[in-house]
Amino acid sequence: MKDGGFFFQRLSGSESAGRLGAISTVHGSFTTPAFMPVGSQGGVKALAPADLKETGTEILLCNAYHLYLRPGIDVIRAVGGLHNFMGWDGPILTDSGGFQILSLSALREVTPEGVRFRSHVDGSLHFFTPAKVVQVQEELASDIMMVLDDCPSHSVAYEAARASTALTTEWASKARDAKTDSDKALFGIVHGSVYPDLRVRSAIELIEIGFDGYAIGGLSVGEDKTATFEMVEVVTSVLPKDSPRYLMGMGKPEDIVAGVQMGVDLFDCVLPTRGARTGILFTSFGQIVIRNACYRDDTRPIDPQCTCYTCRNFSRAYLRHLFVSHELLAYRLNAIHNLFYYHSLIRNIRQALAEDRMDQFTKEFVSLRTQEDGRHTGREGGEVSC
Amino acid sequence: MKDGGFFFQRLSGSESAGRLGAISTVHGSFTTPAFMPVGSQGGVKALAPADLKETGTEILLCNAYHLYLRPGIDVIRAVGGLHNFMGWDGPILTDSGGFQILSLSALREVTPEGVRFRSHVDGSLHFFTPAKVVQVQEELASDIMMVLDDCPSHSVAYEAARASTALTTEWASKARDAKTDSDKALFGIVHGSVYPDLRVRSAIELIEIGFDGYAIGGLSVGEDKTATFEMVEVVTSVLPKDSPRYLMGMGKPEDIVAGVQMGVDLFDCVLPTRGARTGILFTSFGQIVIRNACYRDDTRPIDPQCTCYTCRNFSRAYLRHLFVSHELLAYRLNAIHNLFYYHSLIRNIRQALAEDRMDQFTKEFVSLRTQEDGRHTGREGGEVSC
Repeated sequence: MKDGGFFFQRLSGSESAGRLGAISTVHGSFTTPAFMPVGSQGGVKALAPADLKETGTEILLCNAYHLYLRPGIDVIRAVGGLHNFMGWDGPILTDSGGFQILSLSALREVTPEGVRFRSHVDGSLHFFTPAKVVQVQEELASDIMMVLDDCPSHSVAYEAARASTALTTEWASKARDAKTDSDKALFGIVHGSVYPDLRVRSAIELIEIGFDGYAIGGLSVGEDKTATFEMVEVVTSVLPKDSPRYLMGMGKPEDIVAGVQMGVDLFDCVLPTRGARTGILFTSFGQIVIRNACYRDDTRPIDPQCTCYTCRNFSRAYLRHLFVSHELLAYRLNAIHNLFYYHSLIRNIRQALAEDRMDQFTKEFVSLRTQEDGRHTGREGGEVSC
Repeated sequence: MKDGGFFFQRLSGSESAGRLGAISTVHGSFTTPAFMPVGSQGGVKALAPADLKETGTEILLCNAYHLYLRPGIDVIRAVGGLHNFMGWDGPILTDSGGFQILSLSALREVTPEGVRFRSHVDGSLHFFTPAKVVQVQEELASDIMMVLDDCPSHSVAYEAARASTALTTEWASKARDAKTDSDKALFGIVHGSVYPDLRVRSAIELIEIGFDGYAIGGLSVGEDKTATFEMVEVVTSVLPKDSPRYLMGMGKPEDIVAGVQMGVDLFDCVLPTRGARTGILFTSFGQIVIRNACYRDDTRPIDPQCTCYTCRNFSRAYLRHLFVSHELLAYRLNAIHNLFYYHSLIRNIRQALAEDRMDQFTKEFVSLRTQEDGRHTGREGGEVSC
């Protein structure tokens, strides 16, 4: 599956904004829209590469900030790069760590040159410049690298958002200059908080610098959901049609469906693997909270329609038992199901896009999630009542 | 692999006490000596049935006490028995729970009729009689059931040990009478603490009652190791040659080698799966403590000789990283390796028995564990220094 570096091809010519595409990397190709499971520290929680392949995973998300701090870039270099280190031979996208410095670090001191922060692991001091973060990702041998972005906290005022976005654009330019490996892609990150004019300006300035793809960052950090999708729509309407678009860190099933309709190609989200650990199981008819007593002697699989390893072999009763008994196996079986659900959703979306019936797909998707066995759900986040 | 119920056949005619044999159950056959991974609550920590098969597991140990308390026998019956519940189609041996009542329960009130105890899960009161525990195991549809035994605490005085052993024998007789399913095996449990005459009397009385196999219980609970093996030798010299012998809860690699030489057929131990969670990895040259800094950039697999999934795909550096990062994947990859090591050890022992060179095997086994890359180990428990 080795070929000549990064390449994106838009495939669908539908009048709708939803697009079918293909991304090639030196570690293989995949169709877009695509969902990336999160393996921040070089491992997707509870899942081995063979599990990921079996669930339909084609590209992984890892995190430069995490891997730089632990185990350290020298270790990953010694083992021959991130793919060898984690035993994953498919494409890898690495986030820069801008968001992690905001969310995890005790210290975060932003200067025009970069950001000083304390490691959340051992308290040590570090300084990330836009160039250094590209270098780190090139040493990891990531297939798609992200620029270092300044992530302001949620509900930032207009003037602060403007300044922060301008800094991100400046850093993006420096990152672009620092890139040495033409096989790898570098994506810019559109910011601008909830301010449409800042979002548009950010997108336009990044397009001027020129990137292999464009991410939409700084969303789903606490703002109103209407604002979130208003921003996605504003940005995708400006971005070049023949570059891939990546909506960062947003991936409820309904977000993916909505994002695709607005022209997004790449998604990542911790929900399927975090849900596995908190007992939230995704199905076409909504989310099951597996610890609920109603599943105590429920002999059915999580989703009777699902063909994943977990649904083929285990009952809700067994999965509930493992979960309430804190058995480690619970987290893996749940994660296998959840990721299989996400990748099935993506495959169904691709099919709908190919057949130009994305609107109809969306209607059916919403309708299925409002009933199960005659029970109405209606709970927040599509949770199935029982 | 279905056949007509429980059957043990001694295969080897060697002059040594080590025996090769075969056990048949309605859920399939396997060769002895055999090692049983521990899946007390209906799941082996971090491993799915497919993992167990891949590591070479042929029979599992589960626990009637745990499953009776959680999820409850009614749940397992509803799903069609323990094999269906956990998705394991091979043989299962269930322990009665005598030891768990001692080690886990806040209350333990022994009467001639049985034992009253409090659930360690929810504090509820329960009463186990010898007959009830057989009934529970028949409802679980276990292949090999254990009698309820009275487990006195470590360092019990002679007179108390005598009384406790007599009670266990009395209960064993009641358990024998309560058994209704001829397809399943019921094993008696030899007790007698560290007193040879009590051990011999216990064995002889159980043989008189008549069981499908004989376990040696109440060992490795804190007594001196010399005493442990003195008891094993005393008991196996009395037990019938054509019945299987099971040494309960003892399974350091060196214990298995020594136990086999004394004529033991079945072993179980939490060490391979507990070691997986505490970062102790078993190899032919001793135990690796994976969190040690010397493995930080060690590109070798755990054991270069090993062909398990973990050793085929991951370096010590990656496994150390997963472990120090508390990644759930660490526990599964470690458990796969450790169980593969245990089952490989068992396969090598079977081969040595078949070729009548168990003494030579033991010498080589000990010699290999004293060196690695020219480093001497010499630490307690075979830990490799670095």
